[in-house]
Amino acid sequence: MLQISKIFRFEMAHAIYGYAGKCKNVHGHSYILHVTITGSSDNDSYIPAPGFIYDFKQLKKIVNETVINKLDHQLVLSNEYLQTNTALISAENIFAWEMEPTAENILIYIKQNLQLALPAEIKLIKLQLYETADSYAEWLC
Amino acid sequence: MLQISKIFRFEMAHAIYGYAGKCKNVHGHSYILHVTITGSSDNDSYIPAPGFIYDFKQLKKIVNETVINKLDHQLVLSNEYLQTNTALISAENIFAWEMEPTAENILIYIKQNLQLALPAEIKLIKLQLYETADSYAEWLC
Amino acid sequence: MLQISKIFRFEMAHAIYGYAGKCKNVHGHSYILHVTITGSSDNDSYIPAPGFIYDFKQLKKIVNETVINKLDHQLVLSNEYLQTNTALISAENIFAWEMEPTAENILIYIKQNLQLALPAEIKLIKLQLYETADSYAEWLC
Repeated sequence: MLQISKIFRFEMAHAIYGYAGKCKNVHGHSYILHVTITGSSDNDSYIPAPGFIYDFKQLKKIVNETVINKLDHQLVLSNEYLQTNTALISAENIFAWEMEPTAENILIYIKQNLQLALPAEIKLIKLQLYETADSYAEWLC
Repeated sequence: MLQISKIFRFEMAHAIYGYAGKCKNVHGHSYILHVTITGSSDNDSYIPAPGFIYDFKQLKKIVNETVINKLDHQLVLSNEYLQTNTALISAENIFAWEMEPTAENILIYIKQNLQLALPAEIKLIKLQLYETADSYAEWLC
Repeated sequence: MLQISKIFRFEMAHAIYGYAGKCKNVHGHSYILHVTITGSSDNDSYIPAPGFIYDFKQLKKIVNETVINKLDHQLVLSNEYLQTNTALISAENIFAWEMEPTAENILIYIKQNLQLALPAEIKLIKLQLYETADSYAEWLC
């Protein structure tokens, strides 16, 4: 099987409501996201010209529009968090979520949005999200 | 499926008994280890608060106690090696093994120890061990 | 399952015929290639001395001879491209291909050549090719 991946970066602040540790307060990460897709040509032969499963540039455009532009430099907080920290509701860059913005839930958010945006012949098969230099979460289809 | 990984580093010396090359003598590596686990929540929905498969910090603690603290700055040699290099038996940091301490066997050692230490609801699914900047071994469940 | 990987680098120029963008003209990349193999010993027990699936050094030698030495510092162009850019046919480092030299097709080329060169007991299971720092393609068996 052939698959291609593109790497993205975004800066995002969050807090985890109810967590007993430093993550309970607003802080930020330099996230690194790997998006992996496969196409219909999943055999082991050469791909006819122009020779792509899918164009890296097109993948980059879709992920930037669908995911990166919505998360980069945002402050993502759950409604539950905001109910106990009401002053943050009026922050210019607030992005209120139903769920806690953990690495795992950010992956589910990205998966749901990308699956709607990708062409029908392209299958999203893996997402990898580095939250720090030594911590990452992955979603696999 | 959702999974999370944590990256660790340890400095370890070893030698490979019977190897016809430079690895037959004591030398060291700056190992990099990726530990990947999954939890019971392996569907594709948002995870309820606090939104984790498992806490990165707890995973870090278990791997440090179970693996890193036992291997870091140790000299790991097989009993067979020590029988022909008896002076090393009294080294302060000697860790004698039944098997040769190759990247592959270090992975089996780590797997066996981690599987005993992780909570029952957590499944160890992958270990990746960089022995050098351009060589790594992996264990997959 | 146990598997081992070795990382390689090569500098290669190419052009993609018929692509509507900057890639249609000759340009180059610093490719990074991960080659992953597994051996017959795929159980979860310690490997008897010397403790290897396969020797990293031997894998390095085969990949260098079979792949890297053939692609490094070459100018890889499809016959179709050369038919419209005939001056390049006489370039000292030209390597003419039937197919377009995209990351996907380079992977198929590497797979086919490596599978012929590896010993029968070794199975090639994954190739990862970074074309740029944030774009890569993979072949999985």
